[in-house]
Amino acid sequence: MLSFFRRRRRSRPRPGAAPVLPPRSDAVAIARVELADLTPPQDAYLGRVGYLTIVLFENLSRAVASAPTTSAKTRLSRAAAQLLAAHEAIVREMERAGIDPVEAMDPSRVELDDFQRRTQGADWHEILVTCYLTAGFLTDFFDGLAAGLPASLSERVSAALDIGEGEGLLVEELREAIDQSPRLASRLAMWGRRLVGDTMLVARSSLALGREAPGEDRIEPVFTELIAAHTRRMDALGLTA
Amino acid sequence: MLSFFRRRRRSRPRPGAAPVLPPRSDAVAIARVELADLTPPQDAYLGRVGYLTIVLFENLSRAVASAPTTSAKTRLSRAAAQLLAAHEAIVREMERAGIDPVEAMDPSRVELDDFQRRTQGADWHEILVTCYLTAGFLTDFFDGLAAGLPASLSERVSAALDIGEGEGLLVEELREAIDQSPRLASRLAMWGRRLVGDTMLVARSSLALGREAPGEDRIEPVFTELIAAHTRRMDALGLTA
Repeated sequence: MLSFFRRRRRSRPRPGAAPVLPPRSDAVAIARVELADLTPPQDAYLGRVGYLTIVLFENLSRAVASAPTTSAKTRLSRAAAQLLAAHEAIVREMERAGIDPVEAMDPSRVELDDFQRRTQGADWHEILVTCYLTAGFLTDFFDGLAAGLPASLSERVSAALDIGEGEGLLVEELREAIDQSPRLASRLAMWGRRLVGDTMLVARSSLALGREAPGEDRIEPVFTELIAAHTRRMDALGLTA
Repeated sequence: MLSFFRRRRRSRPRPGAAPVLPPRSDAVAIARVELADLTPPQDAYLGRVGYLTIVLFENLSRAVASAPTTSAKTRLSRAAAQLLAAHEAIVREMERAGIDPVEAMDPSRVELDDFQRRTQGADWHEILVTCYLTAGFLTDFFDGLAAGLPASLSERVSAALDIGEGEGLLVEELREAIDQSPRLASRLAMWGRRLVGDTMLVARSSLALGREAPGEDRIEPVFTELIAAHTRRMDALGLTA
């Protein structure tokens, strides 16, 4: 896994440079090609994304609750609202398809709750990094995996998973603090590296749902791209992946 | 204060009867008449309601995070979304009126954060009771207090503070557990009584913002009605106020 980081590492942006959000489309476009026939059945896919969006929302709500300023609190509440809207959209898709949302989400509960506990972060900055990196990686991944759904459903899911506005808010909150403290930068870079392992496990086990686990040769190209996108997210924070 | 409870106490609904939500309009209508000239200046009012809606949202997000079932989690996330929408609507009103939202909200931060800490509840059921009772009381109160705002603003604020759907979800979650356990009912009734004191203090100090504290004779009729509405909320849970 580390080799991916090395291969993809970009130059670190100058401190103080305007944060540049990584383009989402690259990773998603490649994932869409590679993942299209690894998509689990509709109910399993939507159930997993449904539960995931609650978990990602809970992370953001912890960020709101622990925000050190009123300004951060109110800005991050917008990002939280975006994830709740994504959750509601996915639940609507399940209802539309005659799928019981609770039954479809339940099988993901234990694993994703555990993922959340392991990745929740010990303080305000770690919580923000978790929100940014895990949500970025997993929405890219599930957006790619949506390629195997019927076309119109796939488009609607893709739209629901577009959390670019919230990502921008998180980068703004983090970037200044990171630029001002090399020590914080180094701690958060380590935290980012730790997160990606747990996050990849969640993605990988989502592929295997309801079918045989695919071979490594099938999975590797997808993860190469997703990790490249992760590295670009780290770059946008001014962190070395 | 206790005398209000006694005077207003209603018969306890039969266990198993469909939960009946208290009609919001009574308390708000009376509060509107009594409060119209105790409304603080627009920026103070909107700032306070803006920060309050974040605090009430944070309570609900704790309920989502600690929900014991997937079903409760996804249902309560709707109630949380409703409070975030209220917050966003109030922030929009500030921006529309040329008020800096952060400056307007900041003066409420310490007091409302403290209110939240004192009322947050020790477990899932207490958290839900807090969400239901404090949000009910304070949205009634601030809806009433909105009577002193310019008419069109007053209407929009009133619409933003209509959280009836979320209240219904909370009653549904709580009612069955309460009906099944007299011991839980007794513990939550005590919790409800404790909450109302802290909640009234927040309401009262909102009146005094930016002007002399009004006399007790002015305030009492308002609180009599708000407490009656609180008692109806307790009744809807099958609890004795």
